[in-house]
Amino acid sequence: MMIVMRADATQREIKTIVDRVQDCGAQAHLSEGQERTIIGVVGDVRSLPRDEFVRMPGVDRVIPISRPYKLASREFHPWNSEVSLDGIRFGGPEVVVIAGPCSVEDRGQLLETAYAVREAGAHALRGGAYKPRTSPYTFQGLGEEGLELLAEARAATGLAVVTEAMSPAQVPVVTRYADMIQIGARNMQNYALLHAVGESQFPALLKRGLSATVDELLMAAEYILSHGNQNVVLCERGIRTFETATRNTTDINAIPVLKTLTHLPVILDPSHSTGHWEYVEAIARAAVAAGADGLIIEVHPQPEIALSDGGQSLKPERFAALVRQVAAIAEAVGRSMAPAKAPLAN
Amino acid sequence: MMIVMRADATQREIKTIVDRVQDCGAQAHLSEGQERTIIGVVGDVRSLPRDEFVRMPGVDRVIPISRPYKLASREFHPWNSEVSLDGIRFGGPEVVVIAGPCSVEDRGQLLETAYAVREAGAHALRGGAYKPRTSPYTFQGLGEEGLELLAEARAATGLAVVTEAMSPAQVPVVTRYADMIQIGARNMQNYALLHAVGESQFPALLKRGLSATVDELLMAAEYILSHGNQNVVLCERGIRTFETATRNTTDINAIPVLKTLTHLPVILDPSHSTGHWEYVEAIARAAVAAGADGLIIEVHPQPEIALSDGGQSLKPERFAALVRQVAAIAEAVGRSMAPAKAPLAN
Amino acid sequence: MMIVMRADATQREIKTIVDRVQDCGAQAHLSEGQERTIIGVVGDVRSLPRDEFVRMPGVDRVIPISRPYKLASREFHPWNSEVSLDGIRFGGPEVVVIAGPCSVEDRGQLLETAYAVREAGAHALRGGAYKPRTSPYTFQGLGEEGLELLAEARAATGLAVVTEAMSPAQVPVVTRYADMIQIGARNMQNYALLHAVGESQFPALLKRGLSATVDELLMAAEYILSHGNQNVVLCERGIRTFETATRNTTDINAIPVLKTLTHLPVILDPSHSTGHWEYVEAIARAAVAAGADGLIIEVHPQPEIALSDGGQSLKPERFAALVRQVAAIAEAVGRSMAPAKAPLAN
Amino acid sequence: MMIVMRADATQREIKTIVDRVQDCGAQAHLSEGQERTIIGVVGDVRSLPRDEFVRMPGVDRVIPISRPYKLASREFHPWNSEVSLDGIRFGGPEVVVIAGPCSVEDRGQLLETAYAVREAGAHALRGGAYKPRTSPYTFQGLGEEGLELLAEARAATGLAVVTEAMSPAQVPVVTRYADMIQIGARNMQNYALLHAVGESQFPALLKRGLSATVDELLMAAEYILSHGNQNVVLCERGIRTFETATRNTTDINAIPVLKTLTHLPVILDPSHSTGHWEYVEAIARAAVAAGADGLIIEVHPQPEIALSDGGQSLKPERFAALVRQVAAIAEAVGRSMAPAKAPLAN
Repeated sequence: MMIVMRADATQREIKTIVDRVQDCGAQAHLSEGQERTIIGVVGDVRSLPRDEFVRMPGVDRVIPISRPYKLASREFHPWNSEVSLDGIRFGGPEVVVIAGPCSVEDRGQLLETAYAVREAGAHALRGGAYKPRTSPYTFQGLGEEGLELLAEARAATGLAVVTEAMSPAQVPVVTRYADMIQIGARNMQNYALLHAVGESQFPALLKRGLSATVDELLMAAEYILSHGNQNVVLCERGIRTFETATRNTTDINAIPVLKTLTHLPVILDPSHSTGHWEYVEAIARAAVAAGADGLIIEVHPQPEIALSDGGQSLKPERFAALVRQVAAIAEAVGRSMAPAKAPLAN
Repeated sequence: MMIVMRADATQREIKTIVDRVQDCGAQAHLSEGQERTIIGVVGDVRSLPRDEFVRMPGVDRVIPISRPYKLASREFHPWNSEVSLDGIRFGGPEVVVIAGPCSVEDRGQLLETAYAVREAGAHALRGGAYKPRTSPYTFQGLGEEGLELLAEARAATGLAVVTEAMSPAQVPVVTRYADMIQIGARNMQNYALLHAVGESQFPALLKRGLSATVDELLMAAEYILSHGNQNVVLCERGIRTFETATRNTTDINAIPVLKTLTHLPVILDPSHSTGHWEYVEAIARAAVAAGADGLIIEVHPQPEIALSDGGQSLKPERFAALVRQVAAIAEAVGRSMAPAKAPLAN
Repeated sequence: MMIVMRADATQREIKTIVDRVQDCGAQAHLSEGQERTIIGVVGDVRSLPRDEFVRMPGVDRVIPISRPYKLASREFHPWNSEVSLDGIRFGGPEVVVIAGPCSVEDRGQLLETAYAVREAGAHALRGGAYKPRTSPYTFQGLGEEGLELLAEARAATGLAVVTEAMSPAQVPVVTRYADMIQIGARNMQNYALLHAVGESQFPALLKRGLSATVDELLMAAEYILSHGNQNVVLCERGIRTFETATRNTTDINAIPVLKTLTHLPVILDPSHSTGHWEYVEAIARAAVAAGADGLIIEVHPQPEIALSDGGQSLKPERFAALVRQVAAIAEAVGRSMAPAKAPLAN
Repeated sequence: MMIVMRADATQREIKTIVDRVQDCGAQAHLSEGQERTIIGVVGDVRSLPRDEFVRMPGVDRVIPISRPYKLASREFHPWNSEVSLDGIRFGGPEVVVIAGPCSVEDRGQLLETAYAVREAGAHALRGGAYKPRTSPYTFQGLGEEGLELLAEARAATGLAVVTEAMSPAQVPVVTRYADMIQIGARNMQNYALLHAVGESQFPALLKRGLSATVDELLMAAEYILSHGNQNVVLCERGIRTFETATRNTTDINAIPVLKTLTHLPVILDPSHSTGHWEYVEAIARAAVAAGADGLIIEVHPQPEIALSDGGQSLKPERFAALVRQVAAIAEAVGRSMAPAKAPLAN
């Protein structure tokens, strides 16, 4: 249920309503637009005295939300949300690019990659310290040592750091080192993790599950939002279908669908959604042409010796070409690439 | 098997090889590039005297083709094929747009749409006269009367006509009225139809089956090509997956994959691949950004009363906006929209 | 729309209604049960004078059919349909087994297989003369020569013959030689073929398309039924999913779903639905346990040299074991295996 | 890598090899059959001195394991594993049935159901205390209170209790109250949870993820096995496909595939794999006919008021009928239903 306030409603009127909602055992979430405030009411809505709210001072109208997700829906929050990450804004007019290796392997590899993607125009650094691997016998990531290297790379390059937590227990340590916490595709419905990230109030990058519908992705986001953490960026990373020519099938439709259904920023990961570096550039361009707010891309200085996902990693020079191509597409759709970091002093 | 001739091979040497291939009970297909000729050998290759061919005059080398499709493969034909349609060229530097109603419903609807899409910049007219419908009780198309109306619309607007044949028996009548024959998604593996279209030597638009892999699409094209009909344009139109937010899932990955595996032109149908007009523009832009050679789009002057597929049809003014957006994307990827038809004299 | 007659309605009353339906431009199909007759009305139902029918003599009630298929629905025809094939009955209490090679390869192979499956307890012989093959370069079947061999095998063994037609043009020739015409998975929505089979009034085995929903399968059956051909047996043969451990995924759920939604007999093809002979026995047992009315199984005397689908073909002795296992399952669910043919006189 | 010992190898010879494996930085797992012992070696196998092992005393041969999973593979452990649960044995000749409500709702509902399923012949009790729910606004389970009720139901009925843990933090509390810990489909690749369950050495029921391949399911099992916990039962519970007639598609093929690839017991959950109670009986029969070692089934005394999954829950009397049907199928495949609990004294 959504209580739309009048444009001239006072703060006191808003507060009175919020209090009344809470008295009824439900939760109130404010969405403050330039013209008016909307109060989202979540919880067991059936027992709420809807008629009473209609008559309260400052209320324009009360409308049901038809979707199973509330806080994530554009009905509740009609204007685009922006999520800030160390001066970068996801969901605004500018297109943002996160890049880096699949896994943090060692200090040399990480720093080399970080400098290279920075110079090519990336705005943030990705890199896995905790790696969800299908096999227990393959490289599982460097753990906290990897986080320390990421923090060092940030200090050296000024790039914000995005990295994954795989369990609630890893949330505090990841938030200590990183700027944005990633929830991977396999954990999209790991509810304990969603709760922990929601409570952390930390910026979150939520990747769509391999076989999750768009509605399920938004329900997963709702878990985070329902803890008051509004800093959620959604990421399409390919779905599992019968087609085996690529690792996954990029659901490009999901970009305009999500931009219609939700106010949250949406980015795309063409590295995982194709699984082959040869196709990454084409799909990165397509994503921005379809309306994506950003990209997350795997880059490795020597993909042929990468400990994970080498086949889908771009070399730095290819990545630099990709950034230029994507910038041209951004212009063609009336947006622009977020500005690159200024050159480092020698 | 592919016999790559030397750059200085003579026509006589080429002919000698072709004759020898045929003596062995196989077929030879020539692919004549600017620098050299490649002879594709298809049929039961196992029994061919490969060593003998290696030693014949004019032969540079003999290499196996690793893919199950031969004539469709880029290995065999490394340069892009272009397919001509009444002065329009698919597969060249320019992006081509086919537009029109799902079904030809009546003279007024068709002519109004044809004029509108022409003015908006479309290069060819689509419209179904024979309609494959899931239910035997829904509108099945006007049949030959629809073809006559399409021919009238071509005479009036100068737009080439693309329309579907659903069975071998319909191929002669469709080729009598239309400029390009469409093989629909449900008939992608209708081998009798593929044979008939192959033998017709008529330009063909081959749509990917709902659950066909990229390899199977290329094998279907191979059926047409193996009859000597090189005029095949492939069309991605969405695949069937678990996601129900859209009618189908646009396999945008298929664009760069197909452009890598085959020399044939590739276009995309965002109307069927999304099933919702709201998403058609975004996916049309994405397709061209990913490297598609063209688009085929459903346009209807009054989608709300269309006899089929109204929900995915654009109104003419939205279509005109789409053409402008796609033109901007074409420029951003170093291509251009094929020129619009000159205004009609009054 | 369904007009349910009263138990005491006369033939004259029924005829009056049928005539009135036809006057309105619709079609009437009779379903005559032991207690009463139901008249299914198909065509453009919206314009029919429903109230008038309600008041006509002999009418009990008029009810809409909620499913898109009418004649195939169990709402219209509540009791099980039985389809007769040369003395065998599909859809009754007995379980029927069709067996034979994927392709008719030569006289020796076919006769050897036919004798073997007959002895093992099969009730009908399968074998492809026209083969839908993904590649134009692989064995395409013996054509009419294959049909002649099938007719010879029938003469020798007394087994009814089931074989596929791939186009409308093949329907007359197939019906000349065979006892039941198969519509393959790739042609499930080949409407010209469905029309031709409908008009032939010949028993039809309709296989589910690789990515067809249960509803689409029933709509395809409706095309045949709407021509007055009631002799349709449905066949689940596996659907295409992300799982690659087997060739297809047997949709075992489809068995009880179809038995609920339709009155038509339903059989299962474990050879195609698994693609590996090792799994065929388990899935054959599962099918009958789930309520299937029969099985169609590939058997080859030497699978390792089969021209097609050798990997999924059983050797005769394994097939004989399968028949025994399936008979035990049939008993366990209160049915029985249809009796085997009497031994041949020497 | 697998080191197959000779039938007459001594314990000392075996120990020497295990020590040598560990010296090399790898792990040794013993699989002790009636005739001989197999030592599974996992870890980074590439650096191991294979030739050296071949020559060590007591070694018959050293063979590579071709599958990505080792301890779960039938290559490593050719005989069936049995998993014991309070006197019940999964994976032996007898078929085991777990039944109970989706969620523990209250004391009355749980006890009524527990007594009913016991009387109908169930061998263990299921019931969710921690519920993974798509929406944060729906019933999330009773938590530890639900576990206490489950323990009470066990005390009253003697049925072993199976219930889910959703995070590593819940593992200690679940193992305190329950007899078997369930890892749900959404958590199949929650590696922190797999680790915790592996270390707990507690019997585990591992459900296949919605879009997990059979190989991925076995890799998830490998995570648990690699901690030395051999008590893993696998559960097929339906996969996500394009078909919407049922909630999921039961992958019945997975039963014989898994029985071929792994030695672990395999059961099937027809409640989730169909999502409709009408189809549960048919699929339960099919599962046992295909070779499943057991079933897990949702039963609720009043499905129409269930807090979750009512539509797929059987009433107790239908469940009793199902047990009888499944027992008949078990006999038909040469197995038997595990004996029901003796009647309770009044």
